[in-house]
Amino acid sequence: MRPSGRQPDQPREVTLTRGFTRHAEGSVLVSFGDTQVLCNASVEAGVPRWLRGKNQGWVTAEYGMLPRATHTRGGREAARGKQGGRTLEIQRLIGRSLRAAVDLKKLGEFTITVDCDVLQADGGTRTASITGACVALIEALQYMQRKKMIKTDPFRQLVSSISVGVYKGTPVLDLDYPEDSAADTDMNVVMTEDGKLIEVQGTAEAEAFSRAELNNMLDLAESGCQALFAKQHEALGIRR
Amino acid sequence: MRPSGRQPDQPREVTLTRGFTRHAEGSVLVSFGDTQVLCNASVEAGVPRWLRGKNQGWVTAEYGMLPRATHTRGGREAARGKQGGRTLEIQRLIGRSLRAAVDLKKLGEFTITVDCDVLQADGGTRTASITGACVALIEALQYMQRKKMIKTDPFRQLVSSISVGVYKGTPVLDLDYPEDSAADTDMNVVMTEDGKLIEVQGTAEAEAFSRAELNNMLDLAESGCQALFAKQHEALGIRR
Amino acid sequence: MRPSGRQPDQPREVTLTRGFTRHAEGSVLVSFGDTQVLCNASVEAGVPRWLRGKNQGWVTAEYGMLPRATHTRGGREAARGKQGGRTLEIQRLIGRSLRAAVDLKKLGEFTITVDCDVLQADGGTRTASITGACVALIEALQYMQRKKMIKTDPFRQLVSSISVGVYKGTPVLDLDYPEDSAADTDMNVVMTEDGKLIEVQGTAEAEAFSRAELNNMLDLAESGCQALFAKQHEALGIRR
Amino acid sequence: MRPSGRQPDQPREVTLTRGFTRHAEGSVLVSFGDTQVLCNASVEAGVPRWLRGKNQGWVTAEYGMLPRATHTRGGREAARGKQGGRTLEIQRLIGRSLRAAVDLKKLGEFTITVDCDVLQADGGTRTASITGACVALIEALQYMQRKKMIKTDPFRQLVSSISVGVYKGTPVLDLDYPEDSAADTDMNVVMTEDGKLIEVQGTAEAEAFSRAELNNMLDLAESGCQALFAKQHEALGIRR
Amino acid sequence: MRPSGRQPDQPREVTLTRGFTRHAEGSVLVSFGDTQVLCNASVEAGVPRWLRGKNQGWVTAEYGMLPRATHTRGGREAARGKQGGRTLEIQRLIGRSLRAAVDLKKLGEFTITVDCDVLQADGGTRTASITGACVALIEALQYMQRKKMIKTDPFRQLVSSISVGVYKGTPVLDLDYPEDSAADTDMNVVMTEDGKLIEVQGTAEAEAFSRAELNNMLDLAESGCQALFAKQHEALGIRR
Amino acid sequence: MRPSGRQPDQPREVTLTRGFTRHAEGSVLVSFGDTQVLCNASVEAGVPRWLRGKNQGWVTAEYGMLPRATHTRGGREAARGKQGGRTLEIQRLIGRSLRAAVDLKKLGEFTITVDCDVLQADGGTRTASITGACVALIEALQYMQRKKMIKTDPFRQLVSSISVGVYKGTPVLDLDYPEDSAADTDMNVVMTEDGKLIEVQGTAEAEAFSRAELNNMLDLAESGCQALFAKQHEALGIRR
Repeated sequence: MRPSGRQPDQPREVTLTRGFTRHAEGSVLVSFGDTQVLCNASVEAGVPRWLRGKNQGWVTAEYGMLPRATHTRGGREAARGKQGGRTLEIQRLIGRSLRAAVDLKKLGEFTITVDCDVLQADGGTRTASITGACVALIEALQYMQRKKMIKTDPFRQLVSSISVGVYKGTPVLDLDYPEDSAADTDMNVVMTEDGKLIEVQGTAEAEAFSRAELNNMLDLAESGCQALFAKQHEALGIRR
Repeated sequence: MRPSGRQPDQPREVTLTRGFTRHAEGSVLVSFGDTQVLCNASVEAGVPRWLRGKNQGWVTAEYGMLPRATHTRGGREAARGKQGGRTLEIQRLIGRSLRAAVDLKKLGEFTITVDCDVLQADGGTRTASITGACVALIEALQYMQRKKMIKTDPFRQLVSSISVGVYKGTPVLDLDYPEDSAADTDMNVVMTEDGKLIEVQGTAEAEAFSRAELNNMLDLAESGCQALFAKQHEALGIRR
Repeated sequence: MRPSGRQPDQPREVTLTRGFTRHAEGSVLVSFGDTQVLCNASVEAGVPRWLRGKNQGWVTAEYGMLPRATHTRGGREAARGKQGGRTLEIQRLIGRSLRAAVDLKKLGEFTITVDCDVLQADGGTRTASITGACVALIEALQYMQRKKMIKTDPFRQLVSSISVGVYKGTPVLDLDYPEDSAADTDMNVVMTEDGKLIEVQGTAEAEAFSRAELNNMLDLAESGCQALFAKQHEALGIRR
Repeated sequence: MRPSGRQPDQPREVTLTRGFTRHAEGSVLVSFGDTQVLCNASVEAGVPRWLRGKNQGWVTAEYGMLPRATHTRGGREAARGKQGGRTLEIQRLIGRSLRAAVDLKKLGEFTITVDCDVLQADGGTRTASITGACVALIEALQYMQRKKMIKTDPFRQLVSSISVGVYKGTPVLDLDYPEDSAADTDMNVVMTEDGKLIEVQGTAEAEAFSRAELNNMLDLAESGCQALFAKQHEALGIRR
Repeated sequence: MRPSGRQPDQPREVTLTRGFTRHAEGSVLVSFGDTQVLCNASVEAGVPRWLRGKNQGWVTAEYGMLPRATHTRGGREAARGKQGGRTLEIQRLIGRSLRAAVDLKKLGEFTITVDCDVLQADGGTRTASITGACVALIEALQYMQRKKMIKTDPFRQLVSSISVGVYKGTPVLDLDYPEDSAADTDMNVVMTEDGKLIEVQGTAEAEAFSRAELNNMLDLAESGCQALFAKQHEALGIRR
Repeated sequence: MRPSGRQPDQPREVTLTRGFTRHAEGSVLVSFGDTQVLCNASVEAGVPRWLRGKNQGWVTAEYGMLPRATHTRGGREAARGKQGGRTLEIQRLIGRSLRAAVDLKKLGEFTITVDCDVLQADGGTRTASITGACVALIEALQYMQRKKMIKTDPFRQLVSSISVGVYKGTPVLDLDYPEDSAADTDMNVVMTEDGKLIEVQGTAEAEAFSRAELNNMLDLAESGCQALFAKQHEALGIRR
């Protein structure tokens, strides 16, 4: 029934490739099927002006899509002279999600910026970004500990994210582009390992959805996120 | 327990003042307590380029905040030369919500833009905007019918919106600014009259939230939206 | 003869509603007939860079028009990414006029910004803005004295402003939009209570005007400003 | 008493050099003392969108200042990414003034843009611009007649412009920079040959001015503009 | 002597990976050592406005660098709101170079845009971009032929590009970042297979260079480009 | 054969008029035939942020073209809101070339900005700019010495620049606009008095060029630059 032939509760193949580029303190190429996002975490001394002197750090994200990541070429935001509303909305979501993974008080006056640049898009770029960026962020924290920039580990908990939706009346997990563009409802969920919620963003694209459908979708998301946590642990080499 | 002395399930006083300005085809001043938003709906011939020739109309929204709507003065976005991420995110949400209220096929090649300008802010500006903008939109549809611009009524269903959150561990309805800035979780819900969901946007500001808390919040939102539908009906003079 | 049926020397109904919003240190809704402008004065510590260390304060203004303040919707300047020439010209005029009302030396290193946002436009938005903003400015100065932010009163003199023009060959006072768009000459005058001039900006829209016509217009403006000073005193509760 | 040693009613030396550059349809270098402005008039087919099909032409102006036209270097507006309020205000004034010189109905669907670029500034750049631009505009109209682009002459009347002010209590004509920056009042006047007014823009920089002072300044401006008309006629080789 | 231990005439390892992404009509990941650039060619119907109706096509390029492609994070141009001078200069160079590879007359009214996005930078990003973009461009031309969008092959000749410089007094080929930032002279050369020049851009960073040094550098560039042509042929599977 | 009737190795008439404007520390009007560029050097205390505390100065350039410097009017970059790629590319070239003329270590913490504004264009604006700007720069250095702002003379060597190209198969010197727009190859060369190269930027506009053609062009450029050095010496009154 799904264009890809997947079962409703079947996510796409996920890979998390560490060390994809050399310069960043954390660098992960994440793929959710044909969606590929390069997540580079950069550590910089200092915090934004409004945080100065508060004895804490900051974690933020920027998001971009290469012009031909998509089926037809999209304009380059740098050439147009501004980031679109969708871009700003996504990078705010990624930043909030990552801050749930870290104790900013233990980070010291450093800023970690995770750049999520979509090399190839096939639906779910924001959920792939959060999932990959979390690993790049942890790599950067490990770098800071090795370099003695911080004394205690600011890591609090893994976060991962996956999309769910109602496609032709059936709740499905991890929508690809053909599903995403035809779904009745599209929801992005960000979770912690103990099954709690960091973000829930559900949108009725065509038909309003019921509380029952919402619950079905959240059940799917929970199982999907658990699989992503396993992938993150594997990539990080942390015994679960 | 709440700073305002309200009960957890008690919304603020809501007013919907029609005809607040003269020129717009629909004009509503909505207040949720001290939050006041002027919602003006404008009807214009034509649709955006990507919809031309598809024999349908378009409904969109723009959102702004007067510089001194807030406790301390914020910079004027026109002077800064761009709309911020928060502004773009909110106006996209309002636009999507309003499109759920209308059958675009019946609208003809017209665009209705609802400008939501916050005159005074005390939390919940996006939920007040959606609730008031829906009434202004219906006024504009009624204007189009009176002027014979359309033959059939494109109105599908009312939408209303309210915020819920977890404040000091308790789920509460319709957060004002002091609650909003201290809440563990903040969620905006957009609903239809039959209790279905158009949008759910929940964010863990401090602590992740459980499925149980989510359900409690959605119960509160449902009762809050029902009260708003009553207010909308009253303002529109539609017998329920 | 005038579209509104007014006599040539008859201004529109003027109201000055204090305390229109809660957060600003001075807040006045001014109406000249159907023209309505919200004037919010904000007090902030500090002065612009080029005034630092000169032991004086600064008074400035910003002007904006809600997109549907006008008969047909105008684009939102924040969305277009810049303020238009007309906007910049008007806010410079308001700022200069307000500075004539205040002794900046007595203001200390504070900046008062008066935001003039047009909720509804029917001609004369800049003259209404100046007249209302002057009252909001004085409210802000009173606030500063109550809060002991300043020791002496920086208030020097009231300023008010009204438009005059030549409409179908006759000098008329306080043009509304139908007159303004058809007038041969349009002039904005800013005055002090003793009948002196702060600004005179006269433009021949169609036919050049003579010195005699200029003098007739200035006579009208003087009577109009005197009526506005009475309104300002009444609003401020100052015995004249 | 004046820094330059001039009499109160004595303007600066004025020159109008035609044909200063080769490509423009009209090109005049105007100098008012040390103020030098290059005025280039360009004829282009077509009119702005809002005038299309109305069977008339358009005349407009753009104004700029070379970064080091002034005593200390000012930032380049192109590098800053926007034109300042002062620039926009001045170019709107020049454009309105030039439109008084021409019957747009006789111009056909052509646009004449007069670029006024200040090579060196010493006060009075806007008045010099208007005076020189008027000559460049007439050159361009003559070009159009020679090229048979128009059949009848759209020229209506010369316009010229000069500044007046109150400097140390005395009304003076044609202020240079040292006077301008210290004047109590500064007024720019645009006139027609028969002594009528196109624009009057007077600003009390320090002290409000009386109707009597206004009249003295206008008398001075009238004599100054008459001298400028003589210069314009001389430059154009038109017998007066 | 070279930081990398390479011989003066020894280029870095070069790879050209075709089909790196799925959506683009041509997609090549090019690496010159640690410099990695993703070159995606997009075919779109239509040409820029100034070419319409001239019965020819257009080839252009855009260039960007991911924020953390470099040793320290650079600001995102989309967030800053404009492309820097270096970016614009490079993308103009790439575009000109690619147009030398194609007969625009045979391309029909199509535009091919090659996006060159630097994933990782270590010197020579513009030369790698040109070399990889040429292969992506040819892939796109092959796609157009398969899809019968064009009848004849617009391909004229391969172009490749390499940098040369004077490092510590010695002419060297294909500078990496440590060499580039310390070189006396830096020159980028774009060549055709028959050894002719498309572009020569040499800059004395520290000391002026002599004609003899220029000739030595050009000799090196010629040998370097020949090696690149071999790599391009190999990637394209064209028998040489 | 050349449109102007010049011999292949014959440059245009060159003039360097010092003191063209009054305020700048160095001011030169340079003309290469009908190309006229005003070069104003401004001395300002301080250096860009990234040079602070390094005990050296900075020399930079900005370039602009008056809208009607060209045959048809070009848009004003300040009005468009950004400098084009060509402008940025040229001003980077001028800046690099000027820095070769000066020992920045001896300049102290001062910045010299040379504004090159094209009053009239007929090809070769960048080469005329460099040649004229070098003289304005030296004037500014002389000013600094007279004012005791620096103790030792930072001047290292003159730089001059000229264009060469292949026009209808023949190498020619100093292309004017008709040649430039029809040339096969266009090359800009910046040289020092001892015949060394600062910049070489050659572009094949139509046909690739051979090493032999490159050498012929460089020979021409060398003779052209020598003539320019003589003009610079003459303008500066330096005995050669």
